[in-house]
Amino acid sequence: MSLVVVGTVAFDAIETPFGKTDKIVGGAASYIALASSYFNPDIALVSVIGDDFPEAFLNTLKGTGVNLDGLEIRKGEKSFFWSGKYHNDLNSRDTLDTQLNVLADFKPVVPAYARNSDFLMLGNLVPAVQKSVIEQMTARPKLIVMDTMNFWMDVALDDLKTNLKMIDVLTINDEEARQLSGEYSIVKAARKILAMGPKFLVIKKGEHGALLFSENEVFFAPALPLEEVFDPTGAGDSFAGGFIGYLSKTRDISFDNMKRAVIFGSAMASFTVEKFGTERLIGLSESDVQERVQEFINLVQFDISLV
Amino acid sequence: MSLVVVGTVAFDAIETPFGKTDKIVGGAASYIALASSYFNPDIALVSVIGDDFPEAFLNTLKGTGVNLDGLEIRKGEKSFFWSGKYHNDLNSRDTLDTQLNVLADFKPVVPAYARNSDFLMLGNLVPAVQKSVIEQMTARPKLIVMDTMNFWMDVALDDLKTNLKMIDVLTINDEEARQLSGEYSIVKAARKILAMGPKFLVIKKGEHGALLFSENEVFFAPALPLEEVFDPTGAGDSFAGGFIGYLSKTRDISFDNMKRAVIFGSAMASFTVEKFGTERLIGLSESDVQERVQEFINLVQFDISLV
Repeated sequence: MSLVVVGTVAFDAIETPFGKTDKIVGGAASYIALASSYFNPDIALVSVIGDDFPEAFLNTLKGTGVNLDGLEIRKGEKSFFWSGKYHNDLNSRDTLDTQLNVLADFKPVVPAYARNSDFLMLGNLVPAVQKSVIEQMTARPKLIVMDTMNFWMDVALDDLKTNLKMIDVLTINDEEARQLSGEYSIVKAARKILAMGPKFLVIKKGEHGALLFSENEVFFAPALPLEEVFDPTGAGDSFAGGFIGYLSKTRDISFDNMKRAVIFGSAMASFTVEKFGTERLIGLSESDVQERVQEFINLVQFDISLV
Repeated sequence: MSLVVVGTVAFDAIETPFGKTDKIVGGAASYIALASSYFNPDIALVSVIGDDFPEAFLNTLKGTGVNLDGLEIRKGEKSFFWSGKYHNDLNSRDTLDTQLNVLADFKPVVPAYARNSDFLMLGNLVPAVQKSVIEQMTARPKLIVMDTMNFWMDVALDDLKTNLKMIDVLTINDEEARQLSGEYSIVKAARKILAMGPKFLVIKKGEHGALLFSENEVFFAPALPLEEVFDPTGAGDSFAGGFIGYLSKTRDISFDNMKRAVIFGSAMASFTVEKFGTERLIGLSESDVQERVQEFINLVQFDISLV
């Protein structure tokens, strides 16, 4: 097993300026697993759901090569549910409802055969739960990528900081980077966060792209300018999935290869936002992905010869 | 004369979270002329000032090769004055004071020898005044670039739309693009604005970079992630100056060369915001500019080989 993905598999009910959904499949690990499956056919998903979850989606995951042995299905219980409404600019949203259900006491168990995986992706979860996954790995993975959110900075900052010393790449958005560092300048924020432990930091700026920082280097990838961003839910997780999917496929964790991974991650995110939920991430062809990456190349590449 | 620059030469008083200035030199044409002078030594400035303007700044302009024959100096009158205060995020500002003074009845006169210039940069001004400049040109310039602002969309939209049919490149910010087009999506906004006349559109997004659109192509350049943005005043004008300065130097108005011009424009803007007013745009060396452009190259270039 080369990649372990841990995070929520859940239901979302979403309202955007373009429409609203009933309960549809969501959750960080759903997006991450689907996006990374385009690069890596050897993924173990670790999550928990109730027995209310649609078999069809689980079959979709299996069909992409995602192994579900680490997906706990609790009889008689309900899956995690989140409901939110996006504002007109799609850059902010209000949470309307959160029902933890099975997530309330989620104790992820990494299947034995996946505990020596080289790549570990920790989707947004309680920091202590993320840590418990790291501790189950029998050998230190080649790369640990962790996503988190502002909520844990408010209620579990010490645990979060403990994790920062154990991981390689942190992915957060710009507001979260400001909150975590206490710095308004993104450059200063990045420096402070890298000093907390991770060797690399991805700052996601939504429609304004993403920045990748190491101690001495910085790389920027724009978001693709789209006619319509239909539903931003899962964009960050799809980015993370494409990012670690590409890295785990190529097994090269140099900064230069991480740049490519950021582009592939951005490409996967650009698909996700075109439809509600995970819909657009299902059934893409290899040439769909390649064409999308080519759009990124066309968007940013230029040729300047300096003397 | 290869480049004519029309716009305000003025005083600003600026307050940012980092400090405040008394009256300092500002005005769109000051930034445009300084930024373009790094690329083109053959520039005619067309503007108006009172006799209160510092001789030292005029000498600085002359020293960079900017010809001031088209700069009207009105005896006994005062120069245009603007005062503003930036909010903490530097992305928005309040105008505290505007004193039109000499600008109230500015009738720009392009010197006779500059009327056949190949490149014309119209800084933000009353649209009818911008038009009067176009009409003074004895031959249609190879390229006309125009900047404008939301205020003219409110009070002189018809005149602005007339200009759009006469120019080649429009530069506006994202909010202005939304206002002018009535579209929230930047991609849709760009399409509508291009249909109004200009062959190219630059949408400036401040710290989030700039997009260049033609009918069939799009290019994105980020803003350089800086430790401190000290004072954003003049960033858009410095961008425009670098953009048309580079184009007028290379005399190549293909989309590929405009991409390069966007990068050089972004580089000049990145200098401007590092200090108050025009200070940082004065006395840069060629290698300063080249090093800055190299930072942009390092920031965005990646190498992906698609099969």
